[in-house]
Amino acid sequence: MKVVGQKHSRVEILEKVTGQSVFGADVRLPTSFLIGKILRSPHAHARIQHIDTSKAERLPGVKAIVTATDLPPVRFGRFIWDQEYFARTKVRYVGDHVAAVAAVDEATAEKALELIKVDYEVLPAVTDALEAIRPDAPLIHEEYEHYKAAAMAVGRKGNVCFHKETVVGDSESGFRSSDRVFEHRFHIPMVHQTYIEPHTVLARVDASGRVTVWVPTQAQFFLRSCIADIFELPFIKVRVIPTEIGGGFGGKMLPTVEPAAVALARKSGRPVQIVMSRAEDFQCANPRHPCYARYKTGVKLDGTILAREVELVLGTGAYCGNGLVICVRAEMLAIGPYRIPNIKIDLSAVYTNHADCGPYRAPAGPQLAFTSESQIDLIARELGLDPVEMRLKNLIEDGDQTPASGGPLKDVHGKETLRKAADIAQWGTRPGEKNRGRGIALGYWLVGGMASSAGVKLNEDGTVTIMTGVIDLSGTVTSLGQIVAEVLGVDLADVHVRTADSDFAPHSTISAGSQGLRSMGTATKLAAEEVKNQIKQVAADKLEADTNDLEMEGKRVYVKGSVEKGLSLAQVAQLSLTHKRGPIVSVQSTPPFPNQPAFSAHVVDVEVDPDTGRVNLLRYVAAQDVGTAINPLSVVGQVQGAVLQGLGQAMSEACVFANGKMLNPTFLDYKIFSSLDAPTIEVHLVEHPSATGPFGAKGIGEPSLIPAPAAVANAISDALGVRICELPLSPERVLGAIQAQSKNP
Amino acid sequence: MKVVGQKHSRVEILEKVTGQSVFGADVRLPTSFLIGKILRSPHAHARIQHIDTSKAERLPGVKAIVTATDLPPVRFGRFIWDQEYFARTKVRYVGDHVAAVAAVDEATAEKALELIKVDYEVLPAVTDALEAIRPDAPLIHEEYEHYKAAAMAVGRKGNVCFHKETVVGDSESGFRSSDRVFEHRFHIPMVHQTYIEPHTVLARVDASGRVTVWVPTQAQFFLRSCIADIFELPFIKVRVIPTEIGGGFGGKMLPTVEPAAVALARKSGRPVQIVMSRAEDFQCANPRHPCYARYKTGVKLDGTILAREVELVLGTGAYCGNGLVICVRAEMLAIGPYRIPNIKIDLSAVYTNHADCGPYRAPAGPQLAFTSESQIDLIARELGLDPVEMRLKNLIEDGDQTPASGGPLKDVHGKETLRKAADIAQWGTRPGEKNRGRGIALGYWLVGGMASSAGVKLNEDGTVTIMTGVIDLSGTVTSLGQIVAEVLGVDLADVHVRTADSDFAPHSTISAGSQGLRSMGTATKLAAEEVKNQIKQVAADKLEADTNDLEMEGKRVYVKGSVEKGLSLAQVAQLSLTHKRGPIVSVQSTPPFPNQPAFSAHVVDVEVDPDTGRVNLLRYVAAQDVGTAINPLSVVGQVQGAVLQGLGQAMSEACVFANGKMLNPTFLDYKIFSSLDAPTIEVHLVEHPSATGPFGAKGIGEPSLIPAPAAVANAISDALGVRICELPLSPERVLGAIQAQSKNP
Repeated sequence: MKVVGQKHSRVEILEKVTGQSVFGADVRLPTSFLIGKILRSPHAHARIQHIDTSKAERLPGVKAIVTATDLPPVRFGRFIWDQEYFARTKVRYVGDHVAAVAAVDEATAEKALELIKVDYEVLPAVTDALEAIRPDAPLIHEEYEHYKAAAMAVGRKGNVCFHKETVVGDSESGFRSSDRVFEHRFHIPMVHQTYIEPHTVLARVDASGRVTVWVPTQAQFFLRSCIADIFELPFIKVRVIPTEIGGGFGGKMLPTVEPAAVALARKSGRPVQIVMSRAEDFQCANPRHPCYARYKTGVKLDGTILAREVELVLGTGAYCGNGLVICVRAEMLAIGPYRIPNIKIDLSAVYTNHADCGPYRAPAGPQLAFTSESQIDLIARELGLDPVEMRLKNLIEDGDQTPASGGPLKDVHGKETLRKAADIAQWGTRPGEKNRGRGIALGYWLVGGMASSAGVKLNEDGTVTIMTGVIDLSGTVTSLGQIVAEVLGVDLADVHVRTADSDFAPHSTISAGSQGLRSMGTATKLAAEEVKNQIKQVAADKLEADTNDLEMEGKRVYVKGSVEKGLSLAQVAQLSLTHKRGPIVSVQSTPPFPNQPAFSAHVVDVEVDPDTGRVNLLRYVAAQDVGTAINPLSVVGQVQGAVLQGLGQAMSEACVFANGKMLNPTFLDYKIFSSLDAPTIEVHLVEHPSATGPFGAKGIGEPSLIPAPAAVANAISDALGVRICELPLSPERVLGAIQAQSKNP
Repeated sequence: MKVVGQKHSRVEILEKVTGQSVFGADVRLPTSFLIGKILRSPHAHARIQHIDTSKAERLPGVKAIVTATDLPPVRFGRFIWDQEYFARTKVRYVGDHVAAVAAVDEATAEKALELIKVDYEVLPAVTDALEAIRPDAPLIHEEYEHYKAAAMAVGRKGNVCFHKETVVGDSESGFRSSDRVFEHRFHIPMVHQTYIEPHTVLARVDASGRVTVWVPTQAQFFLRSCIADIFELPFIKVRVIPTEIGGGFGGKMLPTVEPAAVALARKSGRPVQIVMSRAEDFQCANPRHPCYARYKTGVKLDGTILAREVELVLGTGAYCGNGLVICVRAEMLAIGPYRIPNIKIDLSAVYTNHADCGPYRAPAGPQLAFTSESQIDLIARELGLDPVEMRLKNLIEDGDQTPASGGPLKDVHGKETLRKAADIAQWGTRPGEKNRGRGIALGYWLVGGMASSAGVKLNEDGTVTIMTGVIDLSGTVTSLGQIVAEVLGVDLADVHVRTADSDFAPHSTISAGSQGLRSMGTATKLAAEEVKNQIKQVAADKLEADTNDLEMEGKRVYVKGSVEKGLSLAQVAQLSLTHKRGPIVSVQSTPPFPNQPAFSAHVVDVEVDPDTGRVNLLRYVAAQDVGTAINPLSVVGQVQGAVLQGLGQAMSEACVFANGKMLNPTFLDYKIFSSLDAPTIEVHLVEHPSATGPFGAKGIGEPSLIPAPAAVANAISDALGVRICELPLSPERVLGAIQAQSKNP
């Protein structure tokens, strides 16, 4: 292959680095726009008794105020079925939407928020999932049974909005047959996606009631659905124009500020921009689900796992409309990549008085790898086994199936990935002197792929344009360009690709779940192949040749073996305009993809300061099973970025609350990991073309986030012998664990 | 049919009437833009000796100045082969581009223009086509023979840039067999398209050198080609974003201000907007070709035409790059819709020191109808024949062919159209008292159709979106919506259509030549039909039925005969996302269309004031042969608009020059016809579904402009017996003719 598999910098890189890209808050319109602000609940749980907007309405410069009465009740919407955008009777978290104001400037809008008087009856709140699950916990959704989609939630009781038990074999009997049984409890706190660009939107409603939003979103077609749903509009009355996006990581899927802006634009008759403050975004967007877990695992002395029980409690926050898909995924991940004959999983998702949790890169992944990969490491050490060998003994292989796989699995490269990381990191050696340790962990992920469509057209000068609605978070469009260039025998420089909006793009999948390139790349490749056919048809007529005798390369189509007997693609494109087929163009669709396993394996060397608990990362090796790396530069970047995010969650990140109010909603107090905080991430790709995916590419965006927290925890354990079952592995927590160990060795 | 054939107001009407539509000069970007101004030649013909921009460059606020040296020489470009955008050695008309300036505001830009010093050697100029054709006329293009595409121009001599002789039979022998031979000379002056929105553009060049222009254009893909050509860029480095357009009428096809704005944006690194003043637009855009004609026609006493010689001289202005296609069309129209066994046409196009002429709604049409339809009327009156009967005797019918038709003609409805207009206007009666007269004229037009492509997609709620790059001048997108609604069995309100830009739209034809709906409608209908197939495939699987047994209507697909056994389109759309076919969407292409005859017939009643020469229009009947009227409201509007423009050219319009400088470049001095100036235009459609075109639609935008000048001239002749062979039929000219007649009765 000439283009696929080569390193290419992103096609839009110059726009990005020169600051010319237009992000959400950069959009300008022919007319000026109003500034919107959202009045949010100061209480974690309260009944709304009265909202008085009259004073605010009289403030000069205020152009519109909206509350729940301005929107149709959407509790029973298709997508967000347990939430009204503006609270009508109750607020359920600190930050819940109460009203919104549009004014001529920000100061006026903020002043107006202060003038809105809301009478609340404050209710007891519950913010911890284990407390929320108790029978006597304050009830967050009294009317849950009446929600239309509540059928999704099996066995509701109290605040539990989803409960599922998965049983394979007989775990009790498995434990009885085991030589040893281990039981541990874990806790992973809520973390935030921490994209650099906060949520923002510019909304316009035209004279015909048609809504246009300019918004950095990962999912323009899904967002279109949500807005149509909330405002009870046909889809063609909603246009989503995706701007450049300053990071999403799953956090820019669900509507946040968009409905408020649309409601204000509709009421005021003017465009309205809303930009979240950083604190608002931390407090009110859709963070990762916090998780409590109990793992009980029975093993033979040789490390063979015989039985496992997992009890999981996920906190969903105040609403779980979209979060349930993540609960389903949590179940799949709890089953994991090991052959375990007897499994029992008890999964509960429970409402709490927090912002509703949503997708975050590898949803449920790092939580369930931290638990499982910490425990397996712990068991290996207890049994005196090599943690790598113990994993290899139990890992699934091609043809295996798990209760979650829906059939025999293909393209399973977990063992090779694990071995590669171990080998490169010199697993068999020690990482040096005292207080140093080496940890390994495996990330297991299932990459799906939603149905998509994409188009390719040949321009009159022989260049090629891709027509796609895919949101480019991580180089997807560059890789799409490579795919098309490869199929058509042209250079990447001859292919143009940018993202069209929801009016003009063929239906595109969400840019999430590592599926962007797998799904869109497949649709785009199909379209390119059909364009190739069309090119050959037109050329065959002109060259008086059979299409089967034609080859394409070097921007030409020619009779096999005689390159001079041919036409340039420019000639073909111009011919097509007088040929019976007309302009050369194709749009093709692809159905959804089955879940495909993908692995990452991390080895980290740490040095722990026993006096401060500070963990210093010395070396980081990440191997990932990527199928074919369409653009290795991009794939390596994705792995490095994922590792960094995983390290943030391992080392420092947690949303800290008091009475439901976040105490650290700034980047000063909420420490994310940057490239300055970590050693070079040594990335090694395991490349085996996958049976599905364009040119054998697998989904690659998420897997390398997953094992990082477990790898670090295992390394700390290796260094000092202390096992920490709660994240983050902050100096305080590590020091606490060291001190506890020295008290109770 | 349920949607096609019904009257619908335009889908974008609310945006338009509330002022929300974004026209060329309305566009705003995230960053501010500079204002560009063009330095234009004050001379009709001069050699450039030196350009000194140094003073202008030092003016604070000036950000860029460009001249010919900033652009590659493009004399040999594919599209504009006899012109460099900025004059390098010579200026050839008053208004020719010499330089351009971008500055922080308009006043600074204008001041900078004054500071640019250009030394000219003024050359003798020639502005009249008959003078320009003389052997001793000043030569406008000395290097014509070296132009690459000059091969198009047969028999160049002096300023003649195109010459063609067409001979059928033997006109001399035809004249000898004739009972009477008539010879007349005609003159039609230059007129301007007088769109309300002048030429304007906003251009941006990004860090990678990629050009984006926001521009009201009739031909985004053609404009993309031109810009790519001028700047020697691949097509994918040029993006044309068409804004709403405030009228085009053929005048917004060729680049005017765009290259200057792009050059300035590239040099300054900032976006640049250029808005032409009205005077600039009048003086420097692409007006209609002025025309001199000599018609010699031999007839038998019964009115049978035996022979015709036509000598045509078209003035092309200083450049003829794009104008030559109009010359070719002039030849076809000179042959006309009458069966004439002996024809000789001598057509010359000649350079003059005017702005280069370009397309104007029905290019060459009104000129050659004024000549031919005036003469045929005159002959009928001389022979004592009814002008209607004489036309009917000679008119072509289905199956006839002409030297221009390239085979037997189909869908020929000239006779019926003529009869319909005559009948409704009570042709057999007299229009009342003294000084009143009634005139009839026939318009003949050949509608082509370029290759196009278009897409249709089904949204998840069952609504439908059309993906098209067609520019909507006259309701085209509304009609596309009707076509798709008809095919898919939904309402027009369920279909969305707006124009995508050159990046995202499938290749679309120009919106000119009456072909928009014929070509784009066909491609769109093909795409809708394929979407219908896809819907049936998905539904058939779910309903366990054969696709052939399925029907679609009322937004549902169901088994024939049992409407309840079916699915809504929303259900099908959602099913498709999990079905093996994936999202329902199709893009289809259509090849070019053969020329198709189209007729219009006008009858006008006038009253002439013999003391002032003022012509008062009393009644106006227009019949047009339209195939199927997809949207009769739109079609009637098109006919009325075309008649009004024809009446302007008949009654009052002419660009008046002195030394190449236009003397009347304002709407005060250049009188266009508005609805206040004319009686109600009574429109009658002749509907016979055409063999080509969607649902049998013909091209309809141009034919009704064509006969208006001849109809009025014929009515004046009927009223007073004076025959005027020059346009416009202004009070001065009519009075002059009356006075001349009274001197030489």
